[in-house]
Amino acid sequence: MKIIIVGATGTLGKKVADAFAEKHEVIRVGNTKGDVQVDIKDEASIKAMFEKIGAFDALISTSGKGPFVTVGQMTGEKFKAGLLDKLLGQVNLVLIGQHYINKGGSFTLTSGILADHPIAAGAVLSAVNGGLNSFVIAAAPELENEVRINAISPNVVEDSPAYFDSFPGEIPVTMEKVVKAFEKSVLGIVTGQVIKVY
Amino acid sequence: MKIIIVGATGTLGKKVADAFAEKHEVIRVGNTKGDVQVDIKDEASIKAMFEKIGAFDALISTSGKGPFVTVGQMTGEKFKAGLLDKLLGQVNLVLIGQHYINKGGSFTLTSGILADHPIAAGAVLSAVNGGLNSFVIAAAPELENEVRINAISPNVVEDSPAYFDSFPGEIPVTMEKVVKAFEKSVLGIVTGQVIKVY
Ligand SMILES: NC(=O)c1ccc[n+]([C@@H]2O[C@H](COP(=O)([O-])OP(=O)(O)OC[C@H]3O[C@@H](n4cnc5c(N)ncnc54)[C@H](OP(=O)(O)O)[C@@H]3O)[C@@H](O)[C@H]2O)c1
Ligand SMILES: NC(=O)c1ccc[n+]([C@@H]2O[C@H](COP(=O)([O-])OP(=O)(O)OC[C@H]3O[C@@H](n4cnc5c(N)ncnc54)[C@H](OP(=O)(O)O)[C@@H]3O)[C@@H](O)[C@H]2O)c1
Repeated sequence: MKIIIVGATGTLGKKVADAFAEKHEVIRVGNTKGDVQVDIKDEASIKAMFEKIGAFDALISTSGKGPFVTVGQMTGEKFKAGLLDKLLGQVNLVLIGQHYINKGGSFTLTSGILADHPIAAGAVLSAVNGGLNSFVIAAAPELENEVRINAISPNVVEDSPAYFDSFPGEIPVTMEKVVKAFEKSVLGIVTGQVIKVY
Repeated sequence: MKIIIVGATGTLGKKVADAFAEKHEVIRVGNTKGDVQVDIKDEASIKAMFEKIGAFDALISTSGKGPFVTVGQMTGEKFKAGLLDKLLGQVNLVLIGQHYINKGGSFTLTSGILADHPIAAGAVLSAVNGGLNSFVIAAAPELENEVRINAISPNVVEDSPAYFDSFPGEIPVTMEKVVKAFEKSVLGIVTGQVIKVY
């Protein structure tokens, strides 16, 4: 399988890419690093990435940012920045990528636990993750050529200790569990699923 | 209670406004009609609305649009249009309104069944509604001065027969049930809830 991993140079993406690379051809995409570079906030950049890589069997995204800010301090501009990065950016990987993906291929996006379980200053990412989860549920039945789509929704991961204090009460999940969730989406048969790793 | 209803001139808003007007002071806000006009896509317009109306006890939004388009035909621009209208527009009513609302007041937004149950060409509104639901869950614990926030998530309503064919298998809900859901949010004590009317 030829697998594009957007965000392959990040905390989640690195372990996911290493796991798939054992048996598959992996193209590691980052924003500044990796085999290929892309800016998911820029549709022209996404198109250029697919033109460069060509047809593929699976796209995994472990990319996307949003600001951490309390509701009291939040502005429309900050909220919009999260929507246009982690939410619209990942959606555009699908909207543009659907024209390059092979029959029976799959898209796997990353949302996160904040969709259901809020933390302080996390409202932008909660909205973004909730939007991604519902997008995946709605897009799955409309994708053509037997293409599948799922979202992985992880809890805070063991490899991100800097976030532990922001997630009181949560037990960080192992990277092994996160990697297995991506394997279920890419190598399994499910579609339109939000695969929760928590 | 002084209640602002943004979208009061629409299908849902009209019935909601009539019900609250029996016992409360209702300010009916529309985009082109109503006592006051606002464009929720424009932060300056929202600020002007709150400056004009002054302090209030409850804000209900039954406004917000998004395009109906299949995933195959969808572009990033169309997806973004829905995000910046129904999702960011309603969020901005809260972000700006939090600085004008009275102690113990409430915000009630409108999402919809598409967050969980997709229909053909509904992926933008699914994402928007899912984002709104998660925003409400996350914003509730951070709002100050005992201000509450909920989302009403209706199925297709009996007063919108033009949509019936787009919602196969769904039994349109009565406007009475929809109105009661808004009453639960505004007059009740719940916060951070997605009140499903289906
Ligand atoms: N870490 C956690 O505990 C956790 C938990 C739940 C969900 N998540 C979600 O998982 C995703 C990845 O998180 P992470 O902690 O692995 O992040 P990270 O370590 O910051 O890695 C981000 C990755 O995305 C790439 N990237 C950044 N901006 C980009 C852009 N505009 N266009 C394309 N690629 C871009 C980076 O490339 P460069 O390295 O080249 O800059 C990097 O490969 C995020 O959506 C995050 O919200 C994370
Ligand atoms: N109808 C349904 O079956 C149904 C089911 C589930 C969810 N919903 C949701 O409920 C909400 C209301 O739906 P509806 O069917 O009642 O819509 P509608 O009949 O089209 O009414 C829309 C209302 O919003 C106002 N409006 C339009 N654009 C605006 C803007 N940019 N800024 C401020 N106000 C604006 C309109 O004002 P003017 O009249 O002055 O133009 C009108 O009062 C929508 O978010 C919809 O997605 C509807």
